Amino acid sequence: MVEMELAGAAERLLASQKPVLTVHVSPDGDAIGAMLGLYWLLLEKGCRPVMVVDDSVPAVFQNLLGAELIKPVSEEQLDADLLVVLDASDDGRIGRVRQMVAPGLPVLNIDHHVSNTGFSEMRWLDVRAAATAEMIAQLADYWQYDYAKTGVAEALYTGIATDCGFFRYANTTPRTMRLAARLLEAGVQPNVVSDRIETQPVQTVSKLANVLSGLEMHSDGRVALISIPLDQYDPETDSDSFIRYPRYIEGVEVAVLLKSVAPDVTRVSMRSKELDVSAVALQYGGGGHKRAAGCTIPRPLDEAKAVILKTLSEAIDNGL
Amino acid sequence: MVEMELAGAAERLLASQKPVLTVHVSPDGDAIGAMLGLYWLLLEKGCRPVMVVDDSVPAVFQNLLGAELIKPVSEEQLDADLLVVLDASDDGRIGRVRQMVAPGLPVLNIDHHVSNTGFSEMRWLDVRAAATAEMIAQLADYWQYDYAKTGVAEALYTGIATDCGFFRYANTTPRTMRLAARLLEAGVQPNVVSDRIETQPVQTVSKLANVLSGLEMHSDGRVALISIPLDQYDPETDSDSFIRYPRYIEGVEVAVLLKSVAPDVTRVSMRSKELDVSAVALQYGGGGHKRAAGCTIPRPLDEAKAVILKTLSEAIDNGL
Repeated sequence: MVEMELAGAAERLLASQKPVLTVHVSPDGDAIGAMLGLYWLLLEKGCRPVMVVDDSVPAVFQNLLGAELIKPVSEEQLDADLLVVLDASDDGRIGRVRQMVAPGLPVLNIDHHVSNTGFSEMRWLDVRAAATAEMIAQLADYWQYDYAKTGVAEALYTGIATDCGFFRYANTTPRTMRLAARLLEAGVQPNVVSDRIETQPVQTVSKLANVLSGLEMHSDGRVALISIPLDQYDPETDSDSFIRYPRYIEGVEVAVLLKSVAPDVTRVSMRSKELDVSAVALQYGGGGHKRAAGCTIPRPLDEAKAVILKTLSEAIDNGL
Repeated sequence: MVEMELAGAAERLLASQKPVLTVHVSPDGDAIGAMLGLYWLLLEKGCRPVMVVDDSVPAVFQNLLGAELIKPVSEEQLDADLLVVLDASDDGRIGRVRQMVAPGLPVLNIDHHVSNTGFSEMRWLDVRAAATAEMIAQLADYWQYDYAKTGVAEALYTGIATDCGFFRYANTTPRTMRLAARLLEAGVQPNVVSDRIETQPVQTVSKLANVLSGLEMHSDGRVALISIPLDQYDPETDSDSFIRYPRYIEGVEVAVLLKSVAPDVTRVSMRSKELDVSAVALQYGGGGHKRAAGCTIPRPLDEAKAVILKTLSEAIDNGL
């Protein structure tokens, strides 16, 4: 595999006439924002890029400039000379897009995930970047792109802001903020982007009220737990973000979100301040990062709750 | 009144040997952060600044470097040659601090509020600054302060971040972000600052659940209303921020928070996307900005609710 830096990747991209751009399934703001940004940069450079994603574009990102040009997966065979895989750390994450291009097509992977598996012939990986969109914003600076279209800057800003929690996460660096400043200069309105991202359906707010009303404190206030019982589970409502509420309670070391997804299946998400919750998740066949991990326990909600609370209590007592 | 820019204010500050620094009552992150930042800058410049506030420092800011040096108001007469009033737009906002210094002491006001009344002999007002701390961070750059103490950068970062909603509000400019980038370079950890700011007591989360469970949608989903009845009203719990939940619901034009603070007194807060809610508030003797306004209605919660919903419904129909 050829490892590339910004300059090398820029050169390789320009050598392509008909690149196909794609991102991971369940695309987030960074995947969509980075892809749209690169699309407009390449178009301005005289390439004829095509965007394909094996998933639908979330409604919240459909207003971004060019989002309507993103093709869904189909039987069509694309005439391409390069496959650019953005924001995906693993080959399997792009779904059936591979089937739409010739089997031997060279692949350039542009990504920022530490977990990147190195699946492509060429890779531009920057794990210090808060977002893949941050890498594309660097590319724009490198090419002295003038952001005549504010929409291009807005797509990149959306990508950066969503992946670093609006500059609140640890991955936010001085570079992240300077590139974001550049995008604001190009006309991006930070409040418009954040309004769009933070607006949610009334059902989600009602569900939040419901879930928070069941907040439980355990282990002398060091564990805060919320749960979604089976009769309230609704895969359409985004409840993953609810874990931030127990997470940000004074004195809480570990926040837990339990979701009953089937009578005997409970999904567990954990967030901690210091405790290594990936070690806890690992005991139940899950994984993740030190401070954000999850697992699936093949038991009903109440049993899963008892099991995980016991394990967490022991882990806290042992200073794990 | 003498209007000053950065350079003039810098010069005036250095001409003072014993400046007293103060901020408005109910000090927020920007007031405390800007004052602490200026304190350390002046100390390094050889001045002997003293900080006094006619209020307690909120717990969430007590960890900031030097917060323990902030004096409460007392009978003490301070030997000072300049009173520096930070982040306060009006004389009355600094409480009894004036009584601690000589009556004729010159006052330099450093502020970023459009509503600044021009109460002081000297004023450095920058309404384009997202925060007073942003102005102090500029001063630090002007003086080529090296941020040897990360805590100084952290105080300024806290001030900036809290006043621009972690770079999500419309007041965030490219300059805001570049100065914040500089502070990150000085060692500020954005996640540590945001964790500290966003952590809340378990009572607040329980109260949020309770209040959100009473969410009401009116005017075909264009008005979202939450309320805190008298028996649940608790001035100790910060419930003002709850209005963001109805505010960020899809299709909502106006969010309303009603607080029953006495049997016949209801406080009304409103946030809108486009509608001029200050005009609505004005009808009931209140005021505010176009998209964020409030008033107090001398009626019980239910009556106040009916009144305000009717007024809002008419305002929406008339496209007010």
